[in-house]
Amino acid sequence: MSHPIPHLINGRRTDGGTRTQPVYNPATGAVSGQVQLADALTVDAAIASAQAAFPAWRNTPPLKRARVMSQFKVLLEQHAEAICALITAEHGKVLADSLGELQRGIENVEYASYVTELLKGEHSRNVGPGIDSWSEHQALGVTAGITPFNFPAMVPLWMWPMAVACGNTFVLKPSERDPSSALYIAELALQAGLPPGVLNVVNGDKEAVDVLLTDPRVKAVSFVGSTPIAEYIYATGCQHGKRVQALGGAKNHAVVMPDADIGNAVSALMGAAYGSCGERCMAIPLVVAVGDTTADAVIAGLSAEIAKMKVGPGTEASCDMGPLVTQAHFEKVRGYVDQGVNEGATLVVDGRSLKVPGHEAGYFLGPCLFDHVKPGMRIYQEEIFGPVLGVVRVQTLQEAMDLIDAHEYGNGTCIFTRDGEAARFFTDHIQVGMVGVNVPLPVPVAYHSFGGWKRSLFGDLHAYGPDAVRFYTKRKTITQRWPSAGVREGAVFSFPSSR
Amino acid sequence: MSHPIPHLINGRRTDGGTRTQPVYNPATGAVSGQVQLADALTVDAAIASAQAAFPAWRNTPPLKRARVMSQFKVLLEQHAEAICALITAEHGKVLADSLGELQRGIENVEYASYVTELLKGEHSRNVGPGIDSWSEHQALGVTAGITPFNFPAMVPLWMWPMAVACGNTFVLKPSERDPSSALYIAELALQAGLPPGVLNVVNGDKEAVDVLLTDPRVKAVSFVGSTPIAEYIYATGCQHGKRVQALGGAKNHAVVMPDADIGNAVSALMGAAYGSCGERCMAIPLVVAVGDTTADAVIAGLSAEIAKMKVGPGTEASCDMGPLVTQAHFEKVRGYVDQGVNEGATLVVDGRSLKVPGHEAGYFLGPCLFDHVKPGMRIYQEEIFGPVLGVVRVQTLQEAMDLIDAHEYGNGTCIFTRDGEAARFFTDHIQVGMVGVNVPLPVPVAYHSFGGWKRSLFGDLHAYGPDAVRFYTKRKTITQRWPSAGVREGAVFSFPSSR
Amino acid sequence: MSHPIPHLINGRRTDGGTRTQPVYNPATGAVSGQVQLADALTVDAAIASAQAAFPAWRNTPPLKRARVMSQFKVLLEQHAEAICALITAEHGKVLADSLGELQRGIENVEYASYVTELLKGEHSRNVGPGIDSWSEHQALGVTAGITPFNFPAMVPLWMWPMAVACGNTFVLKPSERDPSSALYIAELALQAGLPPGVLNVVNGDKEAVDVLLTDPRVKAVSFVGSTPIAEYIYATGCQHGKRVQALGGAKNHAVVMPDADIGNAVSALMGAAYGSCGERCMAIPLVVAVGDTTADAVIAGLSAEIAKMKVGPGTEASCDMGPLVTQAHFEKVRGYVDQGVNEGATLVVDGRSLKVPGHEAGYFLGPCLFDHVKPGMRIYQEEIFGPVLGVVRVQTLQEAMDLIDAHEYGNGTCIFTRDGEAARFFTDHIQVGMVGVNVPLPVPVAYHSFGGWKRSLFGDLHAYGPDAVRFYTKRKTITQRWPSAGVREGAVFSFPSSR
Amino acid sequence: MSHPIPHLINGRRTDGGTRTQPVYNPATGAVSGQVQLADALTVDAAIASAQAAFPAWRNTPPLKRARVMSQFKVLLEQHAEAICALITAEHGKVLADSLGELQRGIENVEYASYVTELLKGEHSRNVGPGIDSWSEHQALGVTAGITPFNFPAMVPLWMWPMAVACGNTFVLKPSERDPSSALYIAELALQAGLPPGVLNVVNGDKEAVDVLLTDPRVKAVSFVGSTPIAEYIYATGCQHGKRVQALGGAKNHAVVMPDADIGNAVSALMGAAYGSCGERCMAIPLVVAVGDTTADAVIAGLSAEIAKMKVGPGTEASCDMGPLVTQAHFEKVRGYVDQGVNEGATLVVDGRSLKVPGHEAGYFLGPCLFDHVKPGMRIYQEEIFGPVLGVVRVQTLQEAMDLIDAHEYGNGTCIFTRDGEAARFFTDHIQVGMVGVNVPLPVPVAYHSFGGWKRSLFGDLHAYGPDAVRFYTKRKTITQRWPSAGVREGAVFSFPSSR
Repeated sequence: MSHPIPHLINGRRTDGGTRTQPVYNPATGAVSGQVQLADALTVDAAIASAQAAFPAWRNTPPLKRARVMSQFKVLLEQHAEAICALITAEHGKVLADSLGELQRGIENVEYASYVTELLKGEHSRNVGPGIDSWSEHQALGVTAGITPFNFPAMVPLWMWPMAVACGNTFVLKPSERDPSSALYIAELALQAGLPPGVLNVVNGDKEAVDVLLTDPRVKAVSFVGSTPIAEYIYATGCQHGKRVQALGGAKNHAVVMPDADIGNAVSALMGAAYGSCGERCMAIPLVVAVGDTTADAVIAGLSAEIAKMKVGPGTEASCDMGPLVTQAHFEKVRGYVDQGVNEGATLVVDGRSLKVPGHEAGYFLGPCLFDHVKPGMRIYQEEIFGPVLGVVRVQTLQEAMDLIDAHEYGNGTCIFTRDGEAARFFTDHIQVGMVGVNVPLPVPVAYHSFGGWKRSLFGDLHAYGPDAVRFYTKRKTITQRWPSAGVREGAVFSFPSSR
Repeated sequence: MSHPIPHLINGRRTDGGTRTQPVYNPATGAVSGQVQLADALTVDAAIASAQAAFPAWRNTPPLKRARVMSQFKVLLEQHAEAICALITAEHGKVLADSLGELQRGIENVEYASYVTELLKGEHSRNVGPGIDSWSEHQALGVTAGITPFNFPAMVPLWMWPMAVACGNTFVLKPSERDPSSALYIAELALQAGLPPGVLNVVNGDKEAVDVLLTDPRVKAVSFVGSTPIAEYIYATGCQHGKRVQALGGAKNHAVVMPDADIGNAVSALMGAAYGSCGERCMAIPLVVAVGDTTADAVIAGLSAEIAKMKVGPGTEASCDMGPLVTQAHFEKVRGYVDQGVNEGATLVVDGRSLKVPGHEAGYFLGPCLFDHVKPGMRIYQEEIFGPVLGVVRVQTLQEAMDLIDAHEYGNGTCIFTRDGEAARFFTDHIQVGMVGVNVPLPVPVAYHSFGGWKRSLFGDLHAYGPDAVRFYTKRKTITQRWPSAGVREGAVFSFPSSR
Repeated sequence: MSHPIPHLINGRRTDGGTRTQPVYNPATGAVSGQVQLADALTVDAAIASAQAAFPAWRNTPPLKRARVMSQFKVLLEQHAEAICALITAEHGKVLADSLGELQRGIENVEYASYVTELLKGEHSRNVGPGIDSWSEHQALGVTAGITPFNFPAMVPLWMWPMAVACGNTFVLKPSERDPSSALYIAELALQAGLPPGVLNVVNGDKEAVDVLLTDPRVKAVSFVGSTPIAEYIYATGCQHGKRVQALGGAKNHAVVMPDADIGNAVSALMGAAYGSCGERCMAIPLVVAVGDTTADAVIAGLSAEIAKMKVGPGTEASCDMGPLVTQAHFEKVRGYVDQGVNEGATLVVDGRSLKVPGHEAGYFLGPCLFDHVKPGMRIYQEEIFGPVLGVVRVQTLQEAMDLIDAHEYGNGTCIFTRDGEAARFFTDHIQVGMVGVNVPLPVPVAYHSFGGWKRSLFGDLHAYGPDAVRFYTKRKTITQRWPSAGVREGAVFSFPSSR
Repeated sequence: MSHPIPHLINGRRTDGGTRTQPVYNPATGAVSGQVQLADALTVDAAIASAQAAFPAWRNTPPLKRARVMSQFKVLLEQHAEAICALITAEHGKVLADSLGELQRGIENVEYASYVTELLKGEHSRNVGPGIDSWSEHQALGVTAGITPFNFPAMVPLWMWPMAVACGNTFVLKPSERDPSSALYIAELALQAGLPPGVLNVVNGDKEAVDVLLTDPRVKAVSFVGSTPIAEYIYATGCQHGKRVQALGGAKNHAVVMPDADIGNAVSALMGAAYGSCGERCMAIPLVVAVGDTTADAVIAGLSAEIAKMKVGPGTEASCDMGPLVTQAHFEKVRGYVDQGVNEGATLVVDGRSLKVPGHEAGYFLGPCLFDHVKPGMRIYQEEIFGPVLGVVRVQTLQEAMDLIDAHEYGNGTCIFTRDGEAARFFTDHIQVGMVGVNVPLPVPVAYHSFGGWKRSLFGDLHAYGPDAVRFYTKRKTITQRWPSAGVREGAVFSFPSSR
């Protein structure tokens, strides 16, 4: 039996649109809900609600807006269990991963609560004789976010808390594959004191997206998803005069140097490659081992660790990895493994035959490990978004860096080394936006900003952190002088004080 | 019956010292407690506790320290009623004032919880070829605060939350006249997760202060109080090599221009002059009226408002103003009123004969209003710290500004006008640190900093806000280059990966 | 006789393209030069030159890049006369205006020379235990600028000095109507030490622009011009994945309040309306007078001032206003005046019949002043870019603000008043990016940023100032930890020091 | 024949005081000048001049002040040869060192010229409903600097350019041992457009210093010198209510790890130990070698390099090191070498018998190298300020760090290693303000700030860079609201516009 999943408009759960789409539990294959797919009218209502809420919210002092965020944070902590259950039920990831995701989201809420500090403009006395000038960061109006399935709770929290803390109102379109946690969270925000209409949630697909991209009331769009869609979002939103930041795909390489602490690196790579089933834009699907000795040690270490992994439903605490998100995605990922074998890579660990007893209809794929992956292969070039790790062998760091720089994506990367010089050279020159040194998933903390380079991000400002403040506000610069000193010089003593 | 008020050392209420001093309820004159006065040994124990707690706390990631502050803020809100009761019982101010004070304190805790953002250093790649440089703001070690009776809850919260959020440990010596709220609050901080020893409270007098000023383990001292003591604190602490910020007295002037909204100004001045019985370093004890028409209107307005005021115990919700803090202070303030009459000022409203039925032993003085106060008089020159407002008459804004600039204090001031030019000229040129335009008590919000000029503050960094981060940290600047590229260039391929 | 105006590629004047276009002296109508119009091959060569120069320039320490800017500034000051002569010869504005323009440009060079300070990233120690994180603002690669005829020297200096100071290389396409000053200035930059290829200039039209918008080597495009082109630039550049900032047209309103210093306002409006013949995106073509008394006084004042104006060749020091830029533009502007009359506005001063003796072939139009301009009229709605000022009459400030907010453009605006509240309400709420209070042309100083709202700017980051640093750099965030303490703990004492 | 060296007061060379003191050429022992020692009257005149110049200078827009600095920088570059000749003639350092010193000073002038950017305050709209608040960094008034002999040109340039760029006026008291370059430089500043009285130079000794420390017109004092004097300056200045930053002595340790690039380290240490004859507060007089193998290699490397050094007059381009500054200092340093031998350290290289032919009366001491220096020894504990380098042998990095942290000084330190973890642990935990990683003299660049910890600096704000802006300004915080909307709401339509 599946329940309907509606929209949240002007503070209420609202039905809208005539189409629906099933939401599955990926651990069982069962349909758990029917998400409504917003039509243009529904999205229009959400935008109208946001537009109507804007003037009052924009005039609410930042400190009051910040306090709603503080209170919201408290509620998120109190309801963490319920939220994580929703994430795991619809996305499949293990509960520990859901909690990790939520925790990251909470940190973004926390950062949004610093907005009094973050909104400070720059003030200059005497830019000329008797002339002062200052800047303000004012709210844009209605803003929108379109978010992916892989972090159904966190990515929305990258966006709307800062947007609304800055005085904007917001329309969120979460992924239609796992929409429930975002909706639940939005209702907590209302409970925390966010006025109705400040945050609206519309479920939907391209039809809804296209309204958000073209409606002139929407001033800014944030997107996280795959690169082809990111490009479409960026081109279409910009064509309609909006500011857009669109984060796309990734193929993050981890370089392991000969002097690395291999045990450490292997342990770090396990989580980075197979955590959340590899469905992360900051996952590590490729290891570039410098030297064959290094490669052999890495392969050996990974194989041993993989042997210990337990795959099963995300709700079981003993499981390390859950199912993939949908049947279609499962088949796509398994197809990549087949493809890798065909292309000549060595499949060291083959997870294709995995069966999870009692969950035969779940979308489970065991961890896969390839050796001898090469740049020409599709498993090297394309984003797989599954539990498939490939090892590429090179002879020098320069060779490794050339590979990374030649790849179309530039989201994250990391280097494992003990050597200060190697790390410094790598971090300075690599054409990637987020770089780790012995940190496999260099996701910036909430008080820094998230963003890749090359075809991993379209736009100029990164997600969350300081850049988000700039993205969700427009600069106003005031220049002020006052005319001759009538009142000051006493010419108006007779001025009626009763005025 | 009076209870003992001990110290808080290493997370526990601790007795210390052989001397005690009574704490009074100023609304009744009754003794409510006996505060222990710390001897050198007791202060030494507090410093030792702080010193011992420092290394672990300093190494705790800033985000974790920030979370203790967030949790502490929640507890302060939950226990607001109990805290305000303690403030009013020992200080006498009406409960609404106590709540206002606490609220301001909570905002400082809130700001301290942004410490991850506030501690960011500056990073420069390539200050020279291959050389990077960055700065960090590291904790000092043991820091100390010495706070006054007039804001027993708020002023400590100006200091220690930011100090500990920055990674320092702290010894607080609150006023011995109303120490209970600070102690209560400190215990809430422990409950919020502050490790024992990170915050210690010692009650005491000059004996305790002198240990804090001379012990080499104490790296920084913050003080708020009167100017003579501030000077002593600054000179003594600096002589012992510490960094010191010492905030002293005030005599804040409000200028009323002929074009001001007089009704508005009068209403604002009532609170600024008589709120908390005038026992505020940001109170307005002097109005400078520009033009006699203005002066007459201000006097008339104030007189009418004063007639409506109700003075009585702070616990009664209908009261606008409570008693003075102690019998001695009551006598000092009343003496100033006598003095003003003798000096020739016109006592328009005389509050000296006030009786509060049922509270005959309380330290109640009715609001007093002088006209024709002149610069030579002691009631013009000295800080009275009571419900005594004086009006000075001048003919031009320049005359008003000359008066203000000639006064030894420069804490706060304000101007009432509608005229942009007058306000701009005033704010630019006046020799005062905190300036209001139609704002009678221009106390900066928690995300700006608090501090006067001239003899109202000794030191260079102001209290709370951004300056507090700089005060409670020391700058470390690192310059880094790495030697030739052994590992990177592959010279060490044979390096054992098992290392 | 007219000379050829080529390109500047890889440090040398270079011919390119087969098409040319005449450049006129607008004061005489004579052809002064033939500007070459770059074909795709020529633009490709410029981009290739910039691409080749990038790696070395990017690795040059910021302080060295800053010093080139300092030296360049000195050269600009030394060659000011020659530059201004070129501006006036091709654009027509009076020499004093040319000098003013150049001076503003120099201030942008000055700001670019602060780049060591401006490039500082944020450093956080202990984002987790033993983990540090910091951000860097790294150069993008090849960047491009497309600039308008009206500030042929200044607008290029808004762009490329900061772009190259940040480590980028640049291709500039100045206006083909007055290209010589930008070319001259670029050569001064070479002389100041800018390596060949770091700055390239291509002259041309849409053919050249389209290459810049679509070539994948160009990472960012800055544009200033009219709104339709700005929209095209933004849509096309973004469609090709670039970051784009595109500044468009304007129709700036000046509000005159009844309490304004009218003499002051009139004097300010004269320059704002007729300076540079109104060919400025920050010009004031509309006055909104609040109250008929105000309107009458403004009209009277302006009429009297206009009567004193002298129009003639920009090279004559006694002239206040020169010719329009081209014959076509002259006709367009004169057409608007005809149109205004037809639409029913009152033409108070008619400059259409102006003759400048000895310069009969010049593109001179006398100052025009309309009263009773109304929102429905084309002269209200459209950007005229000529010496045509219209007065709109309203009854309240709210009415004035509603007009401004309803207009498609939101570049600049100003209010003339003495009243603090009116100014504050206006600056807070008006939907315009640059706001003046008694300042008619609120162009931000070089250390703030320039940008309008609504259809006056497409993108999120403004031009020059702090926003330009963010626009011309991409954020890189590094997260770093180091593995177990082998070397520190002495395990490697036997490590060969000869390594 | 020696010339008189007077003061510079109110823009003119001025005689003052009855006492004089000879200035020597340390390479020859000859007297080159007679510096006048200011009496109280002379210092008073300088302060009065600064006080008189303050109001106009403070009101000069920051951009104009910045331009004086830019122009001054150009003049410094043009007159570099003359300035370096003066430095070398009176201090003795080789010309290359003089040029290096001047270059660093010029970078501080450069940074001061960014003052428009650096003075920006923080602006917050809506701190409450309709209330705005912002901060300004206003000038202090008269400020003073007292500078040491070892960098006679650079240290004054750390101070006064930023002080005056911030709008202050200044009284400089350079070292009486080598005063001429500071005086020469001050005159260049006048030539660059600094108004008379904004910068004054008084030569003198304690008599002059004491006036600067006690005169109430002097608001801030910066000092660089030895620790006992720094303590005196800090205590005395603070006792008189001033803000003071007093930088004292140093004993900087360089740690050499077993994995360091020894050749690199040795080469770096040569300059750090013997450059400018060791008369630098950032010199390295102590090497802490981790492991005896390391120590042996360092000793061997240094001995070999020392053998190649040439000592002689600073004016000879072939010389690596010049004389000590005075005969007295020469004897003091030589005494330390004797002392080291007596204390049991091994004198590996003995420079005591050095003779420079033709300069027998010069104060030349050859480079000295000790091995087996131990913490108890005076040559370990005290600042020698001469060409004497000692090697301490330890077995672990922890041992090295414990030594450094136990030392009374904490100015600079560095570590030579290739290992990221060792460097990170060292930079995080070491109790020293300026830390180098493979950088022997980690003097921060001009856009960072300079300052040690422990007894190397008294005060809270460091020298030059961002901290200097805060030190040389006082924060003013304005809070502004405007009364009811009379003008805006049209109530004053009849208001006379002629007002």
